[in-house]
Amino acid sequence: MKIVCYECGKEQKDGNFVYRCSCGGLLEVIHDFTGLDAEKLKRLFAQRLSERMSVYASGVWSYKELIHPELAESDIVTKYEGNTGLYRSEQIRSALGIRELWLKAQSENPSGSFKDNGMTVAISHGRALGFERFTCTSTGNTSSSLAMYAALAEKEAIALVPRKQISLNKVLQTLAYGAKVIGFDGTYDDGIRFYERYGRELGVYICNSINPFRIEGQKSIVYEMAQSLNWELPDWIVIPGGALSNVTALGKGLQDMLELGFIRRMPKVAVVQAEGASPFHMMMSQGKRNLEPVERPSTIASAMNIGNPPSWSKARDFLSRTGGETCSVTDEEIMEAKALVDRSGIGCEPASAATVAGVWKLIAEKKIGAEESVACILTGNLLKDTDVLREYLLKDGRAQMLAADLTVESLERLIRGS
Amino acid sequence: MKIVCYECGKEQKDGNFVYRCSCGGLLEVIHDFTGLDAEKLKRLFAQRLSERMSVYASGVWSYKELIHPELAESDIVTKYEGNTGLYRSEQIRSALGIRELWLKAQSENPSGSFKDNGMTVAISHGRALGFERFTCTSTGNTSSSLAMYAALAEKEAIALVPRKQISLNKVLQTLAYGAKVIGFDGTYDDGIRFYERYGRELGVYICNSINPFRIEGQKSIVYEMAQSLNWELPDWIVIPGGALSNVTALGKGLQDMLELGFIRRMPKVAVVQAEGASPFHMMMSQGKRNLEPVERPSTIASAMNIGNPPSWSKARDFLSRTGGETCSVTDEEIMEAKALVDRSGIGCEPASAATVAGVWKLIAEKKIGAEESVACILTGNLLKDTDVLREYLLKDGRAQMLAADLTVESLERLIRGS
Repeated sequence: MKIVCYECGKEQKDGNFVYRCSCGGLLEVIHDFTGLDAEKLKRLFAQRLSERMSVYASGVWSYKELIHPELAESDIVTKYEGNTGLYRSEQIRSALGIRELWLKAQSENPSGSFKDNGMTVAISHGRALGFERFTCTSTGNTSSSLAMYAALAEKEAIALVPRKQISLNKVLQTLAYGAKVIGFDGTYDDGIRFYERYGRELGVYICNSINPFRIEGQKSIVYEMAQSLNWELPDWIVIPGGALSNVTALGKGLQDMLELGFIRRMPKVAVVQAEGASPFHMMMSQGKRNLEPVERPSTIASAMNIGNPPSWSKARDFLSRTGGETCSVTDEEIMEAKALVDRSGIGCEPASAATVAGVWKLIAEKKIGAEESVACILTGNLLKDTDVLREYLLKDGRAQMLAADLTVESLERLIRGS
Repeated sequence: MKIVCYECGKEQKDGNFVYRCSCGGLLEVIHDFTGLDAEKLKRLFAQRLSERMSVYASGVWSYKELIHPELAESDIVTKYEGNTGLYRSEQIRSALGIRELWLKAQSENPSGSFKDNGMTVAISHGRALGFERFTCTSTGNTSSSLAMYAALAEKEAIALVPRKQISLNKVLQTLAYGAKVIGFDGTYDDGIRFYERYGRELGVYICNSINPFRIEGQKSIVYEMAQSLNWELPDWIVIPGGALSNVTALGKGLQDMLELGFIRRMPKVAVVQAEGASPFHMMMSQGKRNLEPVERPSTIASAMNIGNPPSWSKARDFLSRTGGETCSVTDEEIMEAKALVDRSGIGCEPASAATVAGVWKLIAEKKIGAEESVACILTGNLLKDTDVLREYLLKDGRAQMLAADLTVESLERLIRGS
């Protein structure tokens, strides 16, 4: 296993942990898969499905050989993350008019978001290196995941959180797990820039997705999906695009599986951004090579409210190489799709629903065919952002709490009324 | 499988679904376990641990033979509930000063509470009977679970919710899943009384714990715990006491396992109530046979804010037979225990933390010995009640969002400061 610069290829020392190469490039973990046998590994992974009380009961560490083979089991900090539901919903499928639809609910992770898949690896790696203080900049999901794992490891967690356009629930969750939460005037992007420059000086272990071990852990989402589908993935996998670590990890995980012979063909990947925070979609749709950050990103989907996504070049390369697509959707479209996902009984936070809104759009644009099969990755739990429900459902009058006396007449009227 | 009155033993017809016997007693499902072989079943249950995409991937339906053997698989409405983490926490164990401590996190269920274990069975049973409208009275957790499963089954959900002392998040979750939410002036107990009398007239399928199929599903919590611990349970299992369906189900599940030879000895069970809503503890500690309802129950732990628990006689009998204990804890003790559970990285809602507060008290009262082993059942997710976090953490100044400029100096001060 090596840590190399994604841009210039220079190898970095693991003990001397940095997050950017001296050339400015992001780092990447490169595994040596020589000698690994796909059929043997598949059998091993199948056996581990019945684990419940060891580290291999985790939906991340069950694929340890492909994620961090060298880490000692005793360094692993796990909450049996992953193992999330892969659902079909006839309601959503038929509303979208697509042949086959899957929803992979990373929202069911222990802290309620897909961040847990990567965070368990970052915290475990940082602990093995001897760090005591773990930190991140976050719109909320990363910080609550960080705080949860740091608490499990009995380490200190510090979350840098923009003061605006974040979900209060996520901040409360972060505080409850015992993290120090530091608000600042600025955006997620400002926080990331700051840590990239000064994180080392501060002596903290940074758990944002610029940390390549986060990416290694997040690969497990698509491993798990593939394993559940007997190693035959749908035509498309659709994910929301915020910091773009998701598409980076998805791409890397797919690449691993193709290389090792777990899967025979590469599915296409679509990245959906919110219109008010869509620098990646703008770059890709205009055929540009470089990302122009959005200065003041703004969307109701707080988890995607990122104007300068760190992992854009990795994401660009992967989509270009594999025929992927991007699109952007409005806040209104996101909330409509969210209502559909919630009412299907699956439920998610706004950013996750962007995937369903995106499928709608990509079908209309004839980029996804109605005869194809699609899997959307739901990244965050419905309970993560109830402020948005309060605004959207209650204040906008889309739903309401009815009132009745406890009499048969009064209830009958409300029950039979539409 | 028979449905009989718990009080007078009269058998009821399943198709003609009622919730109370004509004598006023609660109903109970009685299985005929003749011919079941414990060792064979253990092997079957072990095999099913590796299921991911069938109904047997559920942590409830994986024990179908002991829960509802007759139900057709095609009637099952599941979201792979159960399969929750069974954790150790050295922080909590040492704070309590007990030899061994386990925490069973039903908070990790798909709707975020232990209600899912029973609800999947109730909704599946009601669907098999042909019902279109499903309802409950709820302080919030039952209603969101009901709404989620009804949405999955494409059926209508109606939640009767007291207007006071409930968690807004849970109401929003219920609304988001598409349920009709009807507020009324009164308590949970008023709602239950109403449905017991008029539910049938209204033609709705009632999913409260007076429904014996809820209890059957909830038995799976202790099956799963036992299976994870290789069929050797701790000395004590501690649960919060609200409607008391939890202790009823726990008792029934333990009884099943002892009868079938899955376990060799019966662990003791302790029920913890909140001081402001502790009619069951009062009855038990005063050695009375009958429950005196608390007229105006009041506790910060909204999930336990119940003054007239329906399942009290089943709970009484089980505890009396097996040497169980009860105790009550103050809201302050609950919130202290919650801080401990949250800061351990596991996290829960207030009612769940009452179990940890209860262990503390029962050790002090020498009812639980420090050399014994204990498992606490955490019933609800940390995100279920963020209002209480807002009040307790932010307004009370126990935690705060710090503020800093993005400079090394400013952050260093906050990071190194205690």
